[in-house]
Amino acid sequence: MAQVAGHAAEVLDLFRTLGPLSRIEVIEHTGLSRSTVNQRLAALEGAGLIREIGGAESSGGRPSSRFAFAADRARVLTADIGAMGFTLAVCDLAGTPLAHLTRDVEVWAGPEQVLGMVQEGFDELADPADVWAVAVGVPGPVEFAAHRVVNPPIMTGWDGYDIAAAFQTRYPGPVVVENDVNARAVAEARVTGTDNLIALKLGTGIGAGLVFNGRIVRGDKGAAGDIGHTRAAHPDAEPRPCHCGNLDCLETYAAGWALVRTLAESGRDVHRTADVVALVAQGDMEAVRLVRAAGRAVGESVATLVSVLNPRVIALSGQLAQCGEVLLSGVRERMYQQTLPLATRELQVVVSDLGELVGVTGLALTAIDTLLAQDSLDAVLAVPA
Amino acid sequence: MAQVAGHAAEVLDLFRTLGPLSRIEVIEHTGLSRSTVNQRLAALEGAGLIREIGGAESSGGRPSSRFAFAADRARVLTADIGAMGFTLAVCDLAGTPLAHLTRDVEVWAGPEQVLGMVQEGFDELADPADVWAVAVGVPGPVEFAAHRVVNPPIMTGWDGYDIAAAFQTRYPGPVVVENDVNARAVAEARVTGTDNLIALKLGTGIGAGLVFNGRIVRGDKGAAGDIGHTRAAHPDAEPRPCHCGNLDCLETYAAGWALVRTLAESGRDVHRTADVVALVAQGDMEAVRLVRAAGRAVGESVATLVSVLNPRVIALSGQLAQCGEVLLSGVRERMYQQTLPLATRELQVVVSDLGELVGVTGLALTAIDTLLAQDSLDAVLAVPA
Repeated sequence: MAQVAGHAAEVLDLFRTLGPLSRIEVIEHTGLSRSTVNQRLAALEGAGLIREIGGAESSGGRPSSRFAFAADRARVLTADIGAMGFTLAVCDLAGTPLAHLTRDVEVWAGPEQVLGMVQEGFDELADPADVWAVAVGVPGPVEFAAHRVVNPPIMTGWDGYDIAAAFQTRYPGPVVVENDVNARAVAEARVTGTDNLIALKLGTGIGAGLVFNGRIVRGDKGAAGDIGHTRAAHPDAEPRPCHCGNLDCLETYAAGWALVRTLAESGRDVHRTADVVALVAQGDMEAVRLVRAAGRAVGESVATLVSVLNPRVIALSGQLAQCGEVLLSGVRERMYQQTLPLATRELQVVVSDLGELVGVTGLALTAIDTLLAQDSLDAVLAVPA
Repeated sequence: MAQVAGHAAEVLDLFRTLGPLSRIEVIEHTGLSRSTVNQRLAALEGAGLIREIGGAESSGGRPSSRFAFAADRARVLTADIGAMGFTLAVCDLAGTPLAHLTRDVEVWAGPEQVLGMVQEGFDELADPADVWAVAVGVPGPVEFAAHRVVNPPIMTGWDGYDIAAAFQTRYPGPVVVENDVNARAVAEARVTGTDNLIALKLGTGIGAGLVFNGRIVRGDKGAAGDIGHTRAAHPDAEPRPCHCGNLDCLETYAAGWALVRTLAESGRDVHRTADVVALVAQGDMEAVRLVRAAGRAVGESVATLVSVLNPRVIALSGQLAQCGEVLLSGVRERMYQQTLPLATRELQVVVSDLGELVGVTGLALTAIDTLLAQDSLDAVLAVPA
């Protein structure tokens, strides 16, 4: 089967990236022989992954048939687990969320409880028979190849837990485990067509996901992206303790947990990051002041990354990103102040267009890339539609 | 010819990375057919790029012939141009410098003068007939594909200058132009076998070269690596003006030009970074104090990069790196203070083993990779030895 399927992933990838194509166009794009292309198209059509669509009348009068990627052939289930809750979505094979739901649960409740709730939600969203792949995003460092979190600072009880195994028996396809912000970076890179990008998640905590040269930067131990515990550029005279044990980490100035702490100390009835966002929306002066200051602290840290990495896009997501310009203006102010023009000439600093579904979208794309890579696709092609 | 040479680069790459191999081993590693491997070995041997070496007596009694990469087949000329001078080397096809020389010239003397001096040096080092590739490293942002510097802050007169064209008529092979610190990062990555690494050049100025996922990170505009003009983490109460127009850049605390300025103000007879290194070697208390403080400033900036990028190795080079532990102890102290354990568990912070030849070595490797890639190799194979 692998023999037959060789180049099938390459051919399928053309339809995924370019849209509907005729036989001739596939031959032109791949350089493969007509007979090989015919075999691959037949195999992909047989598995229901592409389908023939009405061709335009060609100049010779004979209609040229075209094929299109059948994104609705199967479903991908995704779980974007944050510190205080998760978002689940069932997506098509293009990574588009078709339905989603959210639940509140603290991630330190541990893997059994959290993943049990995820499974219940998955069952609401899709029939396991339709599901070809699963992706789970977690707020901690991930050893991607091993589907595990490693030394997660806030994920008590998850260290070394085999997350993939928890879903593998119910869903026969690939189960991928990815850092939550890495998944967001993948989604932003794909949607914006950018090879050099930083995704920032500003929620209860703060994390970064990096795509450079078109690939996720995981670093040596999968620990890349920990911007939240870098030192704030202009700390107050009074040092601020961080839960990591250090002083003056960026999170103590800009993370949801720190803003909740400060606003609660000043007598507001706030318990969660969502409460801070609500206060800003209501125009609470102290909340607005704090979120502006948080934006400036983020901007100072991001300025260093802009100088060193020269990204094209910085895409913000997470609950605090819902504060929009209140947050963004501070980020931009400090970022432009501390960078040279060449690095910022075409830089875009934006709140993600994908909103709070950016995480599940990136997870779906990561799972689909794994599913439709040659090795895994061979198994799919062995099971005709 | 391209038809014949297909896979030749792949086969040659095996010899470059694994050392001598028998025919059977090449077949096993590539998965190519015996006849294809035989053709490729004949073509590479015909061009003098591999040669047969005495084979070990096999168990069956028949000696199995082996082939080895003929690194001495041709020469690569490299020019590592810094702010205040350059190092030239003639290297073999393994990137090993065979002879080198250095000259003092300020890069802002402009491309005609500097490149004229480089050409004179090249003529001392190698006969043009032996030279198959040339690489020029410059202290500024490079548009790699176009062989040009773009908006170089300190390279007055070089903006948009066609550096490759200046050598192309004399040397028919590829001429690559690369940022000086990127080249150092390539050399360190290859020599240490590391896919995730930061090279820091601490000389008159400060720059970083990044290799992640085994590839140079250039960023969107080729401007990545500008750590010198990020803001120092603990600036003094009195702001320090930087030549870039900003205040409190890392360079104002740790670059050779700033140390020269401070020591000159305190009455020392210093004019160049080399004078600072000499003072430290002599045990001058003020120079030692300043270089230790420079190390701490570098360590604070590097801590942010360690948290965000999780490199395996940080390799220091440049004239100030010759201060060794006086500098390194400060770097390590602050770096470990501001990072979480996962990111530093196996991190190595070292002065480059390659010393001041790290730049020319990386340039040679970059040029050789270009030379021995399939497209360029086709031209080489058309000219038998």
